Amino acid sequence: MKKWGDAVPPLDEFGRIRAWTEGRHNAEFLARTGVALGIGDDAAVLSERPGQEWLVSVDTMVEQVHFLNETMGESDIGYKALASNVSDIAAMGGVPRFALVSVSVPPSWDAERMKRLYDGLYECAERYHVAVIGGDTTSAPRDLVVSVTVIGTVEAGRAIRRSGAKPGQLVFLTGPTGLSAAGLHGLMRGRGQLDKVPPRLAQAHRRPTPSVKAGRLLLENGWASSLNDVSDGLASEAWEIAEASSVKLLLKEDWLPLSGELSAYARDHGLSPIDLVLFGGEDYVLLGTVDKRYESELKERFRQEGLPLFFIGEVEEGAPGVEMENAKGGLPKPIAKRGYNHFAEGTM
Amino acid sequence: MKKWGDAVPPLDEFGRIRAWTEGRHNAEFLARTGVALGIGDDAAVLSERPGQEWLVSVDTMVEQVHFLNETMGESDIGYKALASNVSDIAAMGGVPRFALVSVSVPPSWDAERMKRLYDGLYECAERYHVAVIGGDTTSAPRDLVVSVTVIGTVEAGRAIRRSGAKPGQLVFLTGPTGLSAAGLHGLMRGRGQLDKVPPRLAQAHRRPTPSVKAGRLLLENGWASSLNDVSDGLASEAWEIAEASSVKLLLKEDWLPLSGELSAYARDHGLSPIDLVLFGGEDYVLLGTVDKRYESELKERFRQEGLPLFFIGEVEEGAPGVEMENAKGGLPKPIAKRGYNHFAEGTM
Repeated sequence: MKKWGDAVPPLDEFGRIRAWTEGRHNAEFLARTGVALGIGDDAAVLSERPGQEWLVSVDTMVEQVHFLNETMGESDIGYKALASNVSDIAAMGGVPRFALVSVSVPPSWDAERMKRLYDGLYECAERYHVAVIGGDTTSAPRDLVVSVTVIGTVEAGRAIRRSGAKPGQLVFLTGPTGLSAAGLHGLMRGRGQLDKVPPRLAQAHRRPTPSVKAGRLLLENGWASSLNDVSDGLASEAWEIAEASSVKLLLKEDWLPLSGELSAYARDHGLSPIDLVLFGGEDYVLLGTVDKRYESELKERFRQEGLPLFFIGEVEEGAPGVEMENAKGGLPKPIAKRGYNHFAEGTM
Repeated sequence: MKKWGDAVPPLDEFGRIRAWTEGRHNAEFLARTGVALGIGDDAAVLSERPGQEWLVSVDTMVEQVHFLNETMGESDIGYKALASNVSDIAAMGGVPRFALVSVSVPPSWDAERMKRLYDGLYECAERYHVAVIGGDTTSAPRDLVVSVTVIGTVEAGRAIRRSGAKPGQLVFLTGPTGLSAAGLHGLMRGRGQLDKVPPRLAQAHRRPTPSVKAGRLLLENGWASSLNDVSDGLASEAWEIAEASSVKLLLKEDWLPLSGELSAYARDHGLSPIDLVLFGGEDYVLLGTVDKRYESELKERFRQEGLPLFFIGEVEEGAPGVEMENAKGGLPKPIAKRGYNHFAEGTM
């Protein structure tokens, strides 16, 4: 008689999860972050105090779509999967607190590779004081999928949305963009040989730095009227703010931050630096708008904290959209509403 | 000069998400459930009152691993992806409240198929009063992956864990098991022709019914000392309670619920009904333990509410494990600690 569940060894989900997660957070850390019950039951249990709201966000990375062996090490994938979610919480002005991780694992990812992925994930968790409290692991036929849910907290009623930009305000950016895309270009071209890519560009692609501290400063001081993180590219995120706020964003080409490494790399490889800056994704800096009366205060405070800040344009009345003008004059030109596509043909 | 982001139309994540989600929940529902900000920004914002804790859980379904075209319709996949998560909240005695959905979509899944998936997902959301508040959509090279995170609430300090079973208590089940596995067997055998499978078995596999009401009754009355939902099979879940509680679970073969459809189907297809009951997964009934003094009260209350309830064994002292005995006598036999594997060779 045929038997159900015979013959094939069980996936042993708990065994896998334990191997990848056990002992990573100590009890004191979990208690302090508000974890009443972490990994191991049907659901995690969180405690929280009144006066706060919860922020939740999910982001998924798929092999072949978001990364290849040549572009990301295993630990980079884990690090970045969490970092991209932390960035979403930063983009609301919140504090990232908890993460859940779901992995779908194909045969090509053995236990050792997965452990390195989790090493990177926990490295990011530690850096941003995030407690990993649960997850799910399944098998996958062919490609690895990592889906991370992050939960954060924010002062009740204070989360910074995309929809508050007003005509007359300034557009700011908390760091340069385009570096991650240039890094990806280099990693693809060099087939993963790290010595062929300027380190800062490779690092920007593999280990992005979410702007949590900048987001908190903006919220605590009530400076930002709108805020987004640059995951799909500056142009795309600016369009989101423009549409959500029903305003036009006028970017100044000469104000856009352009790093020396990026200029040099673009020149050496026949790429347009401004296209990288506008349409390269995954830099995870913050794009937002602020009233002009806060300009000097904001600038000064970011300087004191050692955080970069660039004013890159102005908010205007008009049909929702994004335009760019340069110092040479002429009419502002419309900026296409298009996102970032990692390995699309024709983009490299 | 090569251009970044040119040539390929953008994925337009927002367009997709809008098409699948817009207008599904009305404003009154979102306000009542505590959604301060739903889909469309970097993160959703939730409000909540003190005295409660939050429960979070994530579960992922992968094409080829958890479902095939023959076994699940598109809307069933959406329904079940959410239902399996709702079940995790039920298994803590909590109230499911919010869901985030991440889909990785291969070329074989066009917009029409995805819409049907979301139809099923929202049908489940409505049934369990869950607000879908966010998500992520990416492309996938080959196989669809659906990952759902559910957030629930529970009275502070009251969540029912796996670790509270004590010697002398009774083991209960809130419904029969094995039906979903038998349904899957029939669907595979009939290559998706629904008329070849007893409807109740196909339904059990495609549209499981999480035991939220039962979980709440158990928590509100303080009846359950431990609780699990049967996702990986009765044997596997019983092992989890046994190990977490450091007890032995002794199941009585003659007490296990065995539906007429399941018996008939097993007989007709040369399957062992008891193996289906023990090792078939995804029935999403609750398995738990309760003190004997609550036995009649519990039974009576479930009867009043029209909810099924079966006592299936006892908790004993001893090395953590699961055994089963039958009325014919003889020594109890150990039950293997093995999980459910959908399409593993040799299981059908």
